Amino acid sequence: MPQQVSFIGLGKMGEPIARNLLKAGYELRVYNRSTEKAKALVAEGAQRAEVPFEAVEPGGVVFTMLSNDAAVKEVVAGEHGFLHRLGHEGVHISLSTISPETSRELARLHAEYGSQYVASPVFGRPDAAAARKLWLCFSGPEEAKSRVRPLLEAIGQGCFDYGADPGAANVVKLCGNFMIASAQEAMAEALTLAEKNGLQREQVMDMFAQTLFACGIYQNYGKMIAQQRYEPVGFQLELALKDLNLVLDTADQVRMPMPLAGLMHDRLLTGVAKGRGGMDWTALAKGVAEDAGLDKEQE
Amino acid sequence: MPQQVSFIGLGKMGEPIARNLLKAGYELRVYNRSTEKAKALVAEGAQRAEVPFEAVEPGGVVFTMLSNDAAVKEVVAGEHGFLHRLGHEGVHISLSTISPETSRELARLHAEYGSQYVASPVFGRPDAAAARKLWLCFSGPEEAKSRVRPLLEAIGQGCFDYGADPGAANVVKLCGNFMIASAQEAMAEALTLAEKNGLQREQVMDMFAQTLFACGIYQNYGKMIAQQRYEPVGFQLELALKDLNLVLDTADQVRMPMPLAGLMHDRLLTGVAKGRGGMDWTALAKGVAEDAGLDKEQE
Repeated sequence: MPQQVSFIGLGKMGEPIARNLLKAGYELRVYNRSTEKAKALVAEGAQRAEVPFEAVEPGGVVFTMLSNDAAVKEVVAGEHGFLHRLGHEGVHISLSTISPETSRELARLHAEYGSQYVASPVFGRPDAAAARKLWLCFSGPEEAKSRVRPLLEAIGQGCFDYGADPGAANVVKLCGNFMIASAQEAMAEALTLAEKNGLQREQVMDMFAQTLFACGIYQNYGKMIAQQRYEPVGFQLELALKDLNLVLDTADQVRMPMPLAGLMHDRLLTGVAKGRGGMDWTALAKGVAEDAGLDKEQE
Repeated sequence: MPQQVSFIGLGKMGEPIARNLLKAGYELRVYNRSTEKAKALVAEGAQRAEVPFEAVEPGGVVFTMLSNDAAVKEVVAGEHGFLHRLGHEGVHISLSTISPETSRELARLHAEYGSQYVASPVFGRPDAAAARKLWLCFSGPEEAKSRVRPLLEAIGQGCFDYGADPGAANVVKLCGNFMIASAQEAMAEALTLAEKNGLQREQVMDMFAQTLFACGIYQNYGKMIAQQRYEPVGFQLELALKDLNLVLDTADQVRMPMPLAGLMHDRLLTGVAKGRGGMDWTALAKGVAEDAGLDKEQE
């Protein structure tokens, strides 16, 4: 009998990840707040639950992939949450980008009910999720990590273990998103400086993407920023702002000034203020061009 | 008879580059303000000149690799400068990181004397220079570029042509150094956040260097910043400050606000203020750690 796995949260990232579990032969039970989004997976063999706790089997494994801390807490411990149902020996794999503190709090809550919590945020956009090209960093109790490792390997191309602290993997994820946002700002400022000096943005980016910065972040985001085409929407600007808020909150708690994170926060906040919250986060580059008096692409 | 080439400026970068020209079979005439630095190359076959203009042949090719705009102007048009000697059909290849405006001014000056100016700043540290692994971006008159291309290919692993504007290649170089500095700040803030959350800096950097940021800048500088070992001194912090000043001056001239460049300028300026001007520029990370109350490595 195939192993049963639950998956809660079928957004841009959750759906392709859940599909890979289905493809890997797991029996999948899914829940999503908007039922519409579960349809495709149900047609492919998943079972749909009406509320979070119905999606979960006692002693089973449940993934969550939700947009913020509150949403994860709600499906765990809210009115229809699965905490009391998951119970003894159950494991919750939390893929969402949430604060380290929320992970630690959720881990304590699970422990009270005999279940275990593994934080395993992922790096990669929806196309990478579909192609099983995600990178995962995970942390939590050893026993639970051993149990779920095959599941993590089924959805990504590599997993990095950051020890027992359930918040550790979230710290790494926040570090990564902060570094990616910062790289985008650096590219946007550099390419706009080049443009204002009469150079072709793409010709400048091409060189860096082939030489000093020959890696995915600079090649892929660099192309979008050079071409000023902020599509497809792989990761919404408003979610990036949420992440920078998490970075700054986490930094504040440990007394860690991060001037570059502050700058990125404000850049993203301006993007949201200007109505770009639903655009891809590369659209932060529009703010750089605008501040320089360039306004090529009217919205 | 082997082709004769002149080389002025035998610092950390100039010396290994000049050596590669010698190895490639060119007859080399060198000049350096401090004669001591020319000794090794002279022992290997180079001829040493007493003043810049003596190093240059009429109609020949002369490289300069100097630390700032004033030094380049001095060897060209100063008391012992080579401008009047280089003369008709001579070409000056300027490898230094200087301002686009200085390049344009030098190009005009050369044109008055019938010679030509090619800007060809390089990317790479001294070890890359020695290994012929530099990346070059160059710009200037077509004819001169065609003539010197074999020379550029003898000292690097790749050349990128940015057209006729002699300042264009300098803009690209400034963009690159700004992006590298910004990447270092991002890594320093991220790794210090991780450290203050109980994680190992190297374990975090290793993941990024293998995945999202699997490129030289993040791998090499990332290792130094993760280990907090700011050695060897490949590029002095005070020279990086000079470059950020060039970035901001260039940005100012074209009306281009660069908040991240401003932040990097201040970070480097603080480094110099604290007596770290002679350290490698990765030591900017010490400022990040200090601001967070960490002070592991006493100077």
